[in-house]
Amino acid sequence: MSLILGVDIGGTKIAAGVVDDDGEILDRRVCPTPSRKGGSAVIAAVLAVTLSLREANPIHAIGVGSAGVIDPSNGSVLSATDSIADWAGTPLRGLLHEAAGLPVAVCNDVHAHALGEAVHGAGRGHRSMIMMAVGTGLGGAHVVDGAMFTGVHGAAGHFGHIPVDGAEGVVCPCGRTGHLESICSGPALFALYRSLGGDPAVPGAPEILARVEDDPVAADAVARSATALGRVAGGLVNALDADAVVLSGGLGLAADPWWSSMEAALRATTIPLLSEVPALRAELGNDAAIVGAAHHARSVMEGPR
Amino acid sequence: MSLILGVDIGGTKIAAGVVDDDGEILDRRVCPTPSRKGGSAVIAAVLAVTLSLREANPIHAIGVGSAGVIDPSNGSVLSATDSIADWAGTPLRGLLHEAAGLPVAVCNDVHAHALGEAVHGAGRGHRSMIMMAVGTGLGGAHVVDGAMFTGVHGAAGHFGHIPVDGAEGVVCPCGRTGHLESICSGPALFALYRSLGGDPAVPGAPEILARVEDDPVAADAVARSATALGRVAGGLVNALDADAVVLSGGLGLAADPWWSSMEAALRATTIPLLSEVPALRAELGNDAAIVGAAHHARSVMEGPR
Repeated sequence: MSLILGVDIGGTKIAAGVVDDDGEILDRRVCPTPSRKGGSAVIAAVLAVTLSLREANPIHAIGVGSAGVIDPSNGSVLSATDSIADWAGTPLRGLLHEAAGLPVAVCNDVHAHALGEAVHGAGRGHRSMIMMAVGTGLGGAHVVDGAMFTGVHGAAGHFGHIPVDGAEGVVCPCGRTGHLESICSGPALFALYRSLGGDPAVPGAPEILARVEDDPVAADAVARSATALGRVAGGLVNALDADAVVLSGGLGLAADPWWSSMEAALRATTIPLLSEVPALRAELGNDAAIVGAAHHARSVMEGPR
Repeated sequence: MSLILGVDIGGTKIAAGVVDDDGEILDRRVCPTPSRKGGSAVIAAVLAVTLSLREANPIHAIGVGSAGVIDPSNGSVLSATDSIADWAGTPLRGLLHEAAGLPVAVCNDVHAHALGEAVHGAGRGHRSMIMMAVGTGLGGAHVVDGAMFTGVHGAAGHFGHIPVDGAEGVVCPCGRTGHLESICSGPALFALYRSLGGDPAVPGAPEILARVEDDPVAADAVARSATALGRVAGGLVNALDADAVVLSGGLGLAADPWWSSMEAALRATTIPLLSEVPALRAELGNDAAIVGAAHHARSVMEGPR
């Protein structure tokens, strides 16, 4: 039994756990991310959590899933949004390795999340899993035989930036128009609802989901957003010959009619050969990135399981 | 210098070539595919070509790119359209290996085509190449570090079956609606032109491309079809973090305004990090699948170069 520390660095909190071979978390710590204080403060907070857990547990390596695009060649932060100040350029792997004296492997947090679900969660038993993580944005990942597909810059999985019918002209957070994320995320569903003439007193996406039975505009917005998600997921299944789609995030896991609209669009899009590919709900919640980051470190050290 | 025989089995012809380490074809044969006579007649024709070239050249192995979905685990034809009668189920690798007494590797013909372009053609120097092959249909492939991404069933690269704005309700050859291939292929461009009220005397896609300057309906149809192609290619670049898009096929290589419309849509779709990813014209023509099939066999025997 070897123990790996998995660390999930997000814009609001740092969550770390000691993960065993079976993906179980045996011990854990959480602290707020000092995201306004910049990269070195975040590194210090990660180290504090790491050393605290290491004192109590014989860990062999550290796996980190971090916000931002992570350079697969050196574990540095290649680019990042402003969710953590001055995060881009941080040599994350190098700094942690030097300070902790243990092997360190770093990947993107959505990639870690997907790896956790693929190996120990909803994707278990599937060879090629597409993850669609839908919350305040729309992230994604593609895991094949337990390994993350990272792309040339470590940026693979930008499934929110696939064009989709129904998003024409709507501005996406990336600056382009017409992308899935421009109509499918919490804020995007809210904006869509408003643009369709929804009640200005409704404060956000959860309330829109809650009123679909009584509010035809809410029902319309939810159907459009979920249908777009299912279409893009179906196109990805066709393009990648994947055998599972796993949905996660607050919006990704929403109940019917959201889920059934998404699933119907997925079914209507996949080619006959792939018409049985299932849409599955993520199972590990916030632990997925910790478990996935630890799995990533284990793979780097030991080769894929 | 080791010589590999590359064989491209299509619905109309079987083309074979003796390929050296540099991807040069030193000797070649072509014969018609006896496609109506079924699998065993096709196998016999492939063997005749193979033995003829083998007599004159010291080949070490055979690489085959074949129409149909090829099972990556055993080199059999998993499924196929009716372009070759009774092709599905043919144990292609097993039969050729037994008859020729040489190592045999089999892959899909579009995959072979893309491998050839990736390693010895337009994709040289790029790590992650997306191929869009647009002719009588729309096929695709994704080559990473000189290796084909095959998917779970060997069916990866069905980029024609990604939903796209502008194709809503149009029936695709696969039976679904709204896919790229329903408005982007030679026959699809022709059908689109007709549906927009084009001149019934115009006989096909080449003539539509030739009259864009004088026929506004032709210009409209070409713009819609090429824009859809560029959008889907851009979405794939974002999703896969690829560093090159290579276009091939009669329609894929069409001149402006087709090409410029496609490229403008690609540019408008890719996220800022990937905005410089180039669209490139395939360079190897019909030789690509021969060269790619040989490369595939070489990789299987020797490991990736």
